[in-house]
Amino acid sequence: MNFGMVGRILGTLLLIEALILAVPLLVSVVYGETAASAFAWSIVITAAAGLVLTRIKPGSDTIKAREGLLIVTLGWAAAAVFGALPFFFARAVPTFIDALFECTSGLTTTGATIINDPEALPRGILFWRSFSHWLGGMGILVFTLALLPAIGVGGMQIYKAEAPGPSADKLVPRLANTAQLLYTVYLGLTVLAVLALVCAGVPLFDAVLLGFGAVGTGGFTPYSTPMGSVGGSAVPWALAVLMILAGVNFSLYYELWRRRWSSLGSNSELKVYLGITVLSAALVTMNLVRSLQYGWGDAAKHALFQVSSIITTTGYSTADYSQWPEFSKAVLFMLLFVGGSAGSTAGGIKVIRLMVAAKLVGREVRRMLHSQALVPVTINGRVVPQETVASIASFVFLYLGLFVAGTLLVALAGTDLFTSASAAAATLGNVGVGFGLVGPGNSFSFFSGPVKLLLTVLMLVGRLEMFTVLVIFTPGFWRQA
Amino acid sequence: MNFGMVGRILGTLLLIEALILAVPLLVSVVYGETAASAFAWSIVITAAAGLVLTRIKPGSDTIKAREGLLIVTLGWAAAAVFGALPFFFARAVPTFIDALFECTSGLTTTGATIINDPEALPRGILFWRSFSHWLGGMGILVFTLALLPAIGVGGMQIYKAEAPGPSADKLVPRLANTAQLLYTVYLGLTVLAVLALVCAGVPLFDAVLLGFGAVGTGGFTPYSTPMGSVGGSAVPWALAVLMILAGVNFSLYYELWRRRWSSLGSNSELKVYLGITVLSAALVTMNLVRSLQYGWGDAAKHALFQVSSIITTTGYSTADYSQWPEFSKAVLFMLLFVGGSAGSTAGGIKVIRLMVAAKLVGREVRRMLHSQALVPVTINGRVVPQETVASIASFVFLYLGLFVAGTLLVALAGTDLFTSASAAAATLGNVGVGFGLVGPGNSFSFFSGPVKLLLTVLMLVGRLEMFTVLVIFTPGFWRQA
Repeated sequence: MNFGMVGRILGTLLLIEALILAVPLLVSVVYGETAASAFAWSIVITAAAGLVLTRIKPGSDTIKAREGLLIVTLGWAAAAVFGALPFFFARAVPTFIDALFECTSGLTTTGATIINDPEALPRGILFWRSFSHWLGGMGILVFTLALLPAIGVGGMQIYKAEAPGPSADKLVPRLANTAQLLYTVYLGLTVLAVLALVCAGVPLFDAVLLGFGAVGTGGFTPYSTPMGSVGGSAVPWALAVLMILAGVNFSLYYELWRRRWSSLGSNSELKVYLGITVLSAALVTMNLVRSLQYGWGDAAKHALFQVSSIITTTGYSTADYSQWPEFSKAVLFMLLFVGGSAGSTAGGIKVIRLMVAAKLVGREVRRMLHSQALVPVTINGRVVPQETVASIASFVFLYLGLFVAGTLLVALAGTDLFTSASAAAATLGNVGVGFGLVGPGNSFSFFSGPVKLLLTVLMLVGRLEMFTVLVIFTPGFWRQA
Repeated sequence: MNFGMVGRILGTLLLIEALILAVPLLVSVVYGETAASAFAWSIVITAAAGLVLTRIKPGSDTIKAREGLLIVTLGWAAAAVFGALPFFFARAVPTFIDALFECTSGLTTTGATIINDPEALPRGILFWRSFSHWLGGMGILVFTLALLPAIGVGGMQIYKAEAPGPSADKLVPRLANTAQLLYTVYLGLTVLAVLALVCAGVPLFDAVLLGFGAVGTGGFTPYSTPMGSVGGSAVPWALAVLMILAGVNFSLYYELWRRRWSSLGSNSELKVYLGITVLSAALVTMNLVRSLQYGWGDAAKHALFQVSSIITTTGYSTADYSQWPEFSKAVLFMLLFVGGSAGSTAGGIKVIRLMVAAKLVGREVRRMLHSQALVPVTINGRVVPQETVASIASFVFLYLGLFVAGTLLVALAGTDLFTSASAAAATLGNVGVGFGLVGPGNSFSFFSGPVKLLLTVLMLVGRLEMFTVLVIFTPGFWRQA
């Protein structure tokens, strides 16, 4: 293990974070807030830690997959620890664990909050909170579209051939190319989001925060209640469309840019993702109308908004859906696990993996009829290699295993089962909102310190596609070199 | 499709069922009950239907896998329809749908009941109700240990080499051999169960019923409340041990009989099955003691009993565990999915499949470390073929898919989400008891007719390892020959 290089890269990351923290500092200064000093101190400490780490002299310049995995996990963890400082210094939260929870929730684009009254927070802190969604979304795009296919975690090698760039083995140039492209799309979508929200009547500051959350599929809002009354009546529709756009595989925007229309039309994950969204929204709409809670118009608005919010793992809400009829709640609970498309900023299992799982079942049925012939699984007309199928199955099993383990541990603290399961699913899937005590408009503040730490870990593990983090805790990881 | 042979075999099955119905008829006659006429009429109708079907002249004598699959599903369905007649004729239930639910629940060894006060029923009906568990358990043993490995459904081919009998392609002699052996073990275990319960102070009639339920992992009791007060204090311990024995792979009893001790000690499914049971019971015990509900002795008794009851998908209860602390409930809810060992009378996913899923995850982690080399998955030191692993993964995915679909459909009727999920899991897994409105001591009688039919289908689909039933509904099944 080349610890020297790991340290230097982490140090560089912290220096970048120190620079980035200048943005919320500026916001605080502009609004003349005392929170500015919290940012200033955080920048000093983060920069100092970065400088110390970058002074390390590495034995060699080479980094392999092993170092890469360690850098990814430690990098996200370090960014969360130092990014938590402003919350703590500005006394926005009572303890450092709360600050860590909030910042991890931000950077992992989860949006689970421990803050009960965001309205009381300084604007700089609110900005940093939502900005962390945007930064985290950016980080995760490069991670899932460039890094994961190359190391083959959790079946993401399915995109190896499709991702842009010269070749899979040249990691660094590929990363740089891909990153540049993705950031352009991401920035474009953000500008579109803010403009749309401002046009819909949302004040600029709020529009920026909500735009960060929508494009990063985060979910922090500056409100302590569901956002029913923000801006005009077009806001929920605009946000729903923006969230759906953010849940699309970003490599498809690259295809769009290169005007390869056919690859958009033939993309089966896109079709299934939109299909699940529309079908779920339609079912929930009918259920809401039948339960007499809303007329057709309001039912459709709330249903599409909530379905889009949860399938893309954003976590915004326009209504207290925990008061909806049981069937609608069941649909939304199920969507906590689906997640958007792979290669988007969404968390969860992801549509493509569920498609492979469904195809595996279909193949098994065919195999019973046609005397055990092993038909390959195909996606977009291309054969998915046997190892990729196994990777994807492992991913789903580990995901469900961690969900069960998380639920058990939260329940151990005495929390009711529905809330426990919701909290585990909402953090592992980076959704940020669930049912029961962690339902819409509620905060995670009532959990004890240990449970908050557990949920913080779940957010990070879920965000980094689990295997990336867990492999570090195996003895085999540390054995050689 | 050789419909003639399918009809003849179904007819023979109904003739056998008519003969079997003579046993509860005898019980009713002995106790001088008017229910005797209900059995007499049922026998006449069942025998008549059987006679008509056996008169069909088949085109040829051959049956292939396709006909076999159809016979299995239709056979279980027909047995349930005609076995439901006594309940209906004796007016033990209000509608025929209720009778069908109750009899399917019996034959599939589920034990979910729609009868609120079993104490008020004639003894003949109570006997038939529990006897159906015993018959169903017998049927399922041959099905899972002899038929399924041969047709390779849901990864049961894992036992192809281990199951007794000459060879896998000679289905009929193998079935006969295996069946004879399994029935001997099964009968022995039943006698042991009844003796143990009588010795523990249970009245003979009740001991027979509870013995049928324990050995068949059913769960019907002649009581309307949890069985806390039946017999002496040794009863829960005796039943726990009996249930655990019934959840062991029955081919291991064959090994025991052939004195192959080593294959017992090296059987990893047995170890994991016992490990999960003991660990879960220990955790629940500690949780119960900590919550101050029980002292150590009572806590251990209730915990071991309930864990054994649910992991083996029996569904007996000694206490109202829905009042237990959240962690204990979470453990029990999770066990609803586990099921006992494959090749036992237990339902659920089964321990061996969960082991393969866990090993798949472990292999994926190793694959990340050792540059993508595909290590085979092994069980008991033997390599599990790639297709078997895929079968098992498909099984788990389909199981969870049906659970989600079942939950959504039950919730559509307005039932609360926890009850809906419990009902779906308890019927698909053939457990028969869950949480919420279908918790211990409650009945399924409050569900509407359509929901009862849905749950009846889930019991049957779960019992027959899903694929066996679902393949019949594919166009491909009917296309050729």
